[in-house]
Amino acid sequence: MNRFLSFDQPFRTLFRDGNSIVILDQTRLPYEKRYVRLSNVAEAARAIRIMQVRGAPLIGAVAAYGVALAMNENTQDAALDAALHMLMQTRPTAVNLQWALRRMEKRLRPLFETQRAQAAWQEAERIGEEDRQACEGIGRNGLSLLREIETEKGRVCVMTHCNAGWLATLGMGTALAPVYAAYEAGLEVSVVVSETRPRNQGLLTAWELGKTGVPYTLIADNTAAWMLASGCVDAVVVGADRIAANGDTANKVGTCLKALAAHAHGIPFYVAAPFSTVDPDCPSGAFIHIEDRDGEEVRSVTGLDGHGNAVRVCVAAKGIQVVNPAFDITPASLITGFVTEAGVFEPGVLLDAARNRSA
Amino acid sequence: MNRFLSFDQPFRTLFRDGNSIVILDQTRLPYEKRYVRLSNVAEAARAIRIMQVRGAPLIGAVAAYGVALAMNENTQDAALDAALHMLMQTRPTAVNLQWALRRMEKRLRPLFETQRAQAAWQEAERIGEEDRQACEGIGRNGLSLLREIETEKGRVCVMTHCNAGWLATLGMGTALAPVYAAYEAGLEVSVVVSETRPRNQGLLTAWELGKTGVPYTLIADNTAAWMLASGCVDAVVVGADRIAANGDTANKVGTCLKALAAHAHGIPFYVAAPFSTVDPDCPSGAFIHIEDRDGEEVRSVTGLDGHGNAVRVCVAAKGIQVVNPAFDITPASLITGFVTEAGVFEPGVLLDAARNRSA
Repeated sequence: MNRFLSFDQPFRTLFRDGNSIVILDQTRLPYEKRYVRLSNVAEAARAIRIMQVRGAPLIGAVAAYGVALAMNENTQDAALDAALHMLMQTRPTAVNLQWALRRMEKRLRPLFETQRAQAAWQEAERIGEEDRQACEGIGRNGLSLLREIETEKGRVCVMTHCNAGWLATLGMGTALAPVYAAYEAGLEVSVVVSETRPRNQGLLTAWELGKTGVPYTLIADNTAAWMLASGCVDAVVVGADRIAANGDTANKVGTCLKALAAHAHGIPFYVAAPFSTVDPDCPSGAFIHIEDRDGEEVRSVTGLDGHGNAVRVCVAAKGIQVVNPAFDITPASLITGFVTEAGVFEPGVLLDAARNRSA
Repeated sequence: MNRFLSFDQPFRTLFRDGNSIVILDQTRLPYEKRYVRLSNVAEAARAIRIMQVRGAPLIGAVAAYGVALAMNENTQDAALDAALHMLMQTRPTAVNLQWALRRMEKRLRPLFETQRAQAAWQEAERIGEEDRQACEGIGRNGLSLLREIETEKGRVCVMTHCNAGWLATLGMGTALAPVYAAYEAGLEVSVVVSETRPRNQGLLTAWELGKTGVPYTLIADNTAAWMLASGCVDAVVVGADRIAANGDTANKVGTCLKALAAHAHGIPFYVAAPFSTVDPDCPSGAFIHIEDRDGEEVRSVTGLDGHGNAVRVCVAAKGIQVVNPAFDITPASLITGFVTEAGVFEPGVLLDAARNRSA
């Protein structure tokens, strides 16, 4: 493979080890770096559900490997069905999960049972490799956008939300890929990182930027409008969990607030995602199923106590009613463009571009 | 006084006790209810600065009492100047602080030194009583708005931000006064409470609503756009720290994000505040000094540990750069109306209404 960029993950998010896979446990980060071995499909499903792995592309890859883990044990149709079903139920919003499972099924179903195990591992590896390449493509195409801004302003400050960096993929990330490409190209690039309550994935972004040397500033999510109004942000770049055919985009809850504020101040708002995040069967955001998560995520927070131990503290009492959707929908009208592995597309032409690519 | 509403603070935010004042320490809430005695002006200034008292109206009242505490000890011009100066430096954004201090000075400066101590206490009490009355007026005027919605929809769900309830005033609150009035009037009213990172004053709102029986739902700040898009909120009502002559409004950081989302979905966005929050000398939001607070507020969170003890945990490492403005500016164009003690006014006529009132 002809690599455009020299980016390597400082710590691998996922790798194969014999007949199992090993993942970086993201529920422990940024406080503890711990790898977890997944040896069967149930463990893979659990890792996705409890968010030991997260980020749409990485979820897709782990789901694919989950099918391979299932095929290790039993390659009959019933086992394939059960594995697909179990993995499908883990998280509803990220379309990459469905996309990867559909692709695994399409590859494995026609095969003889004796061929399925090896083919499953091969297909999962292929999905992983394609993710790495898609990230690089996003980095390359996003770099042109950031370079244009930097040439004009002498700097480029990117606001992001949640974590859509290398931790969310098998490669250099989606939203952060252009940032890493810009940093590698010597541009004066920096990042504004939004905490991203309730699960504080912004702290994962801070951690991974720190590991790669890119300068950044952390803000409370509430501070986004102030930052965008005060002229210190040049572009907003976020990832995506599902992009509807019309360009409406599901991403981590809070994304739409940033899009509204960027729009109000004429600051470009980009969604960076591989084509596998586009769902051609979903006409608009209204049709996207938004995952409703446990209120405990809002009621408590993980941090380090005075002894440097990670502890979970309760900020709101158990009885308090909480609404905790994991995502929100940013309407296509607020999105300047989609940064994909094949170029930057306006919402109106994204679907055609995705179809041409897969054709 | 002819009371329209029967609301009493479940716990008094401030009361006089001989020659000192006693305040409810809001840095301990909602985990511990503790009263603190303030015996001199330095203690009053510190209580404002470290946010043992907060909320624009309450800050104004404590500042007024702070001058009275100073006059207890020394009524000379130099002592008056020093007290005004010390209190003035505590927090820059809430105009009620300046307003109360200017009023104290105007009352005390012309007096003989022997008259000042008694006059200072009287004037501070008057400011407190006027705040109670202003809150009631806001409650009464806001109730009409909420009643109209409830009549049409059979319910009225109000989203608020930060805490602008009874804890922020000497009375029934500003943003929450209409809610309490509606609850007392038997309306089907509920509140969506936004956590309000970094200091989590939304938890104060949850606590005080709980004490008064009003049903509410807690959300992460990021969830505001999703809630407003999903049709479960009928109006947004927030307080204010300073309202410029053109209606641009400084309020807790994150307010503007809610205003943008409310505007996008055609949901009315009200600012509830007494006329003392209007700053006629400030032409627009661009002239409002936004307080920059310590990054530690973002880097750490207070919650209860497994033993029920309030502890502060670190979510982001000390070295991480943080931007932490305490407020943002919501442009007048996003504000449906101002709910004041004298009626509900559109941004364009608020200044005239405030001037007529004080004339």
